[in-house]
Formats: sequence, C-alpha cells, structure tokens
Amino acid sequence: MGEAIERAKLAKNAAPSLARAGAGDRSQAIRSAAEAVSQAMGAIVEANYRDMARGREDGLPAPLLDRLLLDESRVKGIVDAMLAVADQPDPVGVVLGGSTLPNGLRLEKVSVPLGVVAIVYEARPNVTADSIALCLRSGNACVLRGGSAARESCAAIAAACRSGVAKAGMDPELIQLIASEDRADAVELMHATGIVDALVPRGGAGLIATCVRESTVPVIETGTGNCHIYLTESADPAMARDIVVNAKCQRPGVCNAAESLLVDASAAEGLLGAVLPALSGRGVELVGDDLARRVARDLGIAMGEATDEDWATEYLDLKMSVKCVSGADEAIAHINRYGTHHSEAIVTSEYALAERFLADVDAAAVYVNASTRFTDGGVFGLGAEIGISTQKLHARGPMGAAELTTSKYLVRGDGQTR
Amino acid sequence: MGEAIERAKLAKNAAPSLARAGAGDRSQAIRSAAEAVSQAMGAIVEANYRDMARGREDGLPAPLLDRLLLDESRVKGIVDAMLAVADQPDPVGVVLGGSTLPNGLRLEKVSVPLGVVAIVYEARPNVTADSIALCLRSGNACVLRGGSAARESCAAIAAACRSGVAKAGMDPELIQLIASEDRADAVELMHATGIVDALVPRGGAGLIATCVRESTVPVIETGTGNCHIYLTESADPAMARDIVVNAKCQRPGVCNAAESLLVDASAAEGLLGAVLPALSGRGVELVGDDLARRVARDLGIAMGEATDEDWATEYLDLKMSVKCVSGADEAIAHINRYGTHHSEAIVTSEYALAERFLADVDAAAVYVNASTRFTDGGVFGLGAEIGISTQKLHARGPMGAAELTTSKYLVRGDGQTR
Repeated sequence: MGEAIERAKLAKNAAPSLARAGAGDRSQAIRSAAEAVSQAMGAIVEANYRDMARGREDGLPAPLLDRLLLDESRVKGIVDAMLAVADQPDPVGVVLGGSTLPNGLRLEKVSVPLGVVAIVYEARPNVTADSIALCLRSGNACVLRGGSAARESCAAIAAACRSGVAKAGMDPELIQLIASEDRADAVELMHATGIVDALVPRGGAGLIATCVRESTVPVIETGTGNCHIYLTESADPAMARDIVVNAKCQRPGVCNAAESLLVDASAAEGLLGAVLPALSGRGVELVGDDLARRVARDLGIAMGEATDEDWATEYLDLKMSVKCVSGADEAIAHINRYGTHHSEAIVTSEYALAERFLADVDAAAVYVNASTRFTDGGVFGLGAEIGISTQKLHARGPMGAAELTTSKYLVRGDGQTR
Repeated sequence: MGEAIERAKLAKNAAPSLARAGAGDRSQAIRSAAEAVSQAMGAIVEANYRDMARGREDGLPAPLLDRLLLDESRVKGIVDAMLAVADQPDPVGVVLGGSTLPNGLRLEKVSVPLGVVAIVYEARPNVTADSIALCLRSGNACVLRGGSAARESCAAIAAACRSGVAKAGMDPELIQLIASEDRADAVELMHATGIVDALVPRGGAGLIATCVRESTVPVIETGTGNCHIYLTESADPAMARDIVVNAKCQRPGVCNAAESLLVDASAAEGLLGAVLPALSGRGVELVGDDLARRVARDLGIAMGEATDEDWATEYLDLKMSVKCVSGADEAIAHINRYGTHHSEAIVTSEYALAERFLADVDAAAVYVNASTRFTDGGVFGLGAEIGISTQKLHARGPMGAAELTTSKYLVRGDGQTR
C-alpha cells in the first residue's frame, strides 16, 4: 500500500467530522487556514522561489513559469480567494426538494458532501489553496497531488492550511498532500474506489486523458481548452480585434485563452486586416489555411501553414491558428469537431446568428461579443473554483463548492410497505 | 468499426434534431411511440413468450424469469409509464440560474440534453421502453444494448417505438438498439468518447463493474443494491416484521429489495421471534451469525452460517443474511462497509437514533420505519426511471428525465474583454 492510499484513508477517516460540523465551523476552518497562509507568506514565496529556479533550470516554457510564479501579490490573491469562500453560503444540508407521497412517506432530498475528493494537478500552486478552501466549504476531505515543478510551493501552502485548520479545532488530516512523485501513486489514487468519491484532474490534455482512461473512481474532466473565436461577416472590426487580442494574449497559458480564430471568408480581408497586425504586434505566432495566409502575406505578416493537428491543438502559448469558413454552418461544425467543449465565442452583429451559435455550439460556456477569458469560477461568482468541467455529467463549466456536493433522499415513514 | 459505433454515430447525427424540437414535439413523439407499443402488444407478448421459453430452457432462476416476463398487463404498464413521461414537464431549456456581471455580461445557465445516452442492461425488457421515453423527453438520442435473454422482447419494443417516432415526424434513428451480442461491441460502446456522452449500465454487479472499469465514456453507476434493514431494540415487532417481509419478499429480484437484516443483540430474541417465522413461512433461506442462529434454532427455524461473503452479497433471491449488532455504531459501520449505497432502513421508535441513521448512513436513500422497496423513479414521482444511481456524481438515487440533461452557460456581451 503506497502513500496515496494511506493518505486517502486518513482523509476518509477524517471526513465525517467535517460533514457533521456546522456551516459556521467550516467557515471558521477556512478563515483560520487563510490566516495561516497569510502568516506563512514569507515561507511560501521562498519555497516558490526555489520551484521557479528549478523550473528555469529545467527550461519550463514562459507560460508555465507564469502559472508557477507566486509573488506576494499572488499569495494575497490566494488568501482573498479563501476568505471569499469562507464567506460563501454553505452548500451542505440544503433541502433541494421533497414531497409527501400518497402513502404518507415524507421524502426530502438534501445536499451532502461527496466525502473524499482527490485533486490531481500540475504546476499551479494556487490550486492547492483553492481546492482546500472549496473542499472545506463543501464538507469534504481532500487528497491533493500537485505537479513536481510546484512541489515546494504546494507543500508550504498545504502545511499552512493544515496548521490553520488545527488551530480552528478541526482535524488537520482533512487535508492530505501526497509527497511522492511516483506515477504508481497517482494510479493508485485513481483506483481507490470506495475510499475516494471523486477525482478532479486539473492540467494539460495528457494528465486528463490519463485520469479518464485509468480511473475507476468517478472523474470530473476539466480544463482542456481549445477555444475558438468566430468572426462573422457582420462583426465590428475593432470589437473583433479587441476580443481576439484579449482572448489570445491576456494570459495565454490558461485554459480559457483562445487558440483558434475562424473568420467568414467573405470578410476575411477586412477582419483579418484589423486583427492580424494586432496579434502580430503582440508577438503571436500564426498558422492558417490558404486564404488566411494570402491575406496575411498582403499585410506583410508571417503565417505558417496550419495542419489538421493545429486545429486540434491547445497551444497554451502565444500561437494561434486561423481558418476561413464559408459561414456559420462550417464554423459551428468545425468547433464541435475540434473544440474541447470549454469556451467558444462569436463576434457578430446579427441577432439570428448569435442565437444560433448559442444554441448549436456544444460547450460549457458560449459567448456572444465577449472574450472567452471570462469562463472562471471567480468571474462567474462562485468564489474560487475547483476546475472548469468540460464534460457533461455532474457539472459543466466553472465548479465551485456546490459542485462538490451530492444529494441524499431522507425518507421518514410510519411502517409503510409496498 | 462494429455495429455499436455505427449505431452510436447514427444516434449522434440524429440527436440535434430532437434537441432543437420543442417540448410539444418531444411529448408527441413519446405519445406516438407509446401508442405504437400498445398496438404492437400481440407481437411484443409473443416475442417475450419466445424469450421466456428460451430462458426456462437455459435454467434462468425464478426472479430473473420474473424480471423478463411481459404479459398484457405489464405491457400496459409500460405504455402507461411512457404516457406519464409524455405528460411530464420538459427538462430542456430550463433557466437554472444567471446574473448580470459587474462588467455588463449577461450570464444565463440553461439545461440542455446530454446528446447521446447509451444504456447497457440485462434481461428487463421494460428498460427498453423506459429508456426510450426518458431519452426522448430529455432531448437525447439513445443507444440501447439489452441482455441476450430478452433479445426478442427488446427488439419488438424498440421497433414499435421507432415506427411511432417516425409517425410523429421525428427521426427514427434517434433510437438505436444494438442487435450484436458480441462482447466486443459493448466494449466499443464504452470507448466511444466524443460520440456517446454518458453510459448508464443497468443490471447486476458484474455488468456494472465491467462498465466502470472499461469505460472511458462517463458512466453513471446504478442499481446494485445490497440493502439492509436495521431493527433497533425499540423497534415495534409487528412493524419490523411487516417491513422486513415486504423488503425481502415482495419482489426479491430487484435492486431495492433487502438482502441483510441487522438486529440489536439486546433485543434479538423478541425481534427475530417476530420476523424469522414470517420470513421462513415465505420460503426465505436464512444465514446468520452465532447469536442469530441460536435464536433461530430455539424457534425451530433453519439458519446456515453467514460468511464474510454473505454480508457483501446481493442475493436477488429469497435469501437473507442476519447479523446481531451491539448497537447503532456497529450497524452503521457495517452498512457503510458492506452496503452498496443504495437504500438502507432503520426500524426504531427512538427519535435520536432515527436522525443519526439518516445523517450517517452513506446511501442514495435512507429510510426510517419504511420498506426499502420504495426507492423507485415512479414512486418518487419522476415518472419512469433510467436507473437508480448508487454513485455520488451527477445524480443519486432514482434518475428521471431531468437527470439526463446537462447545463450550458450562455453569455451575451457587447465587446467585453478581461
């Protein structure tokens, strides 16, 4: 039995105490953990400094280093997110429905914690704190396995949270961080049926595919975002430019950044004329189809040839593919084929096209005339988020504390039989 | 590419037409399918007769034959269940929430169909009709793979439904029944990521375990029911007897039937004295622990020795295990260890024990002073049911049409960037 199972069992044993605690106690535990993180600021930033140094040595690409970085202001952001979760309404014990059956049975459906939630993630240390806060909020114990590139940062944050939770009089074993970087430990966690109630992988396509394939524990797929912006003939060029530049460049290493640009061929010259120079000026590497490349050449902008693989790739970097389409039919079909059902946007001034895009695109969040970058638990009002579900079961889009609960029917009778 | 994938693709192509149809069209399609089943009554009963004859030849146990049987009254029941689903409120397009964000973005969360739902089941032909009705209601195309023992019954029902749907002007390809009995076809279906959106296995523990292990498509675990009745010292003996007999004997082949009886040791003589003769009189085979066997011997009732395997077994037959416990702690721990998180009941007159059992037992439905047999979509007011989820993600307990939808964020903006 490896470390992962040991830790999962510790979490499972601790979980009922948190489920039974009141909403106030859970809030207090989160607040106390946030305070401990705040007090450990120096140690956390130092630990992150060591992770960053190692990351640079190992040649991590710039967007991944950006995800890894924790400076004082980002740690403050983490603390604020935790405090926001502490102030959220408690999602446990909510009566979701119920009725009295004709035979007199009183049926009540209430929300209850999942039990033990495992989160497997990569080099984003803030996921450690977000996961802990949301699991405490929802009455769940958590088992965390972060990426090795962020190991010191994650350990410093988890240690602070455990001490904060203990200070609030709760069991620190509610929070488990797996130190082992052995792949076998991750696999063990994925097979911990009966101990782990749900597994949330957060990270790149490879990590998520592994979890989906390997796991016998129910998985919530998150995050891979091959997001598109579709510019229709009637799009306002300036709005198109601002939205595309924002969606691609504001933080290219995150899942709701856009990776692919679709443009009505009939308006390719005008729209690409507005958009491509702005992208190029931000240092975005471009690949495209024949028409897009011709327009780019006329603009004096370099654009490589896009392959079928490009259409399916989440670059997570300053790179974008560009495709000209014959209209909404082709654009929607392309998105539903190559997209990852995360966030998709149309820029248009036609009402009917906007409504059709909203209805027919198969994604967690579909936008009209706005950047895909808004798909986020914080922005959507959930406080922090445990991830962005790109699957259809259980939760879709940003997941907050409520998405970490399940339900239970309580049935009170007086001797009823069928 | 085998039959399963071919059919899944046909379903996927047909699905958008149903999602786009209005609630009234979906109701009409279900009504028309129900009428077609009613008109095909003779053919369905005849097909079932052939399945039953083969089942008897193959030596299927009595409870499985009972599940397989379709007489005129059961077909009428199937038609009525379909008509009830046709009259249900449509679960698609429901606005589940929303807000206007500070930056002016209008956020709307609406319910949408899952897309393609695959149902893999065993020898219960009514599952064919229930699944079709609920998938039509929720805007989903369905791919059905029934057990070979029910092959002719399922084919007759599916054919009737397809013709009914076509008569209502909808695409009959929305309903796909896999004829192949090749195991490879079932496995192919479990790996149809991107085509099948959710897989619902309905059947025995073996089938469900295979789906959970094999499937890369998200699975909703259903049905295995190792359900307990716990009689506390203060239980009314007559009520205890009636509930245990009902939960064990009224339809022993179904998942919400009780399999195991727990009794406070301090009251074992009186309570078992009331319950065991009634069970024995109904022909229930009993196994138990030492104390239970001593009480049974004194009553002149045969009781074998229960093994650890018995505590974990869903007999689905007229057989029950009996264990004496030292109190609620031991009973709840035993249920959470050996149960399948389906339906669990306590019979007691003590308020505090009842509330504690409701809170601490980890199951989809927890009962006080009532039979576990009530856990059912029809009884709970969902019309028909697609299964009873025993997992915690997405849905828990009986699943109706609403549980076959997911959600989508529609975000309308005016050029917002982050």
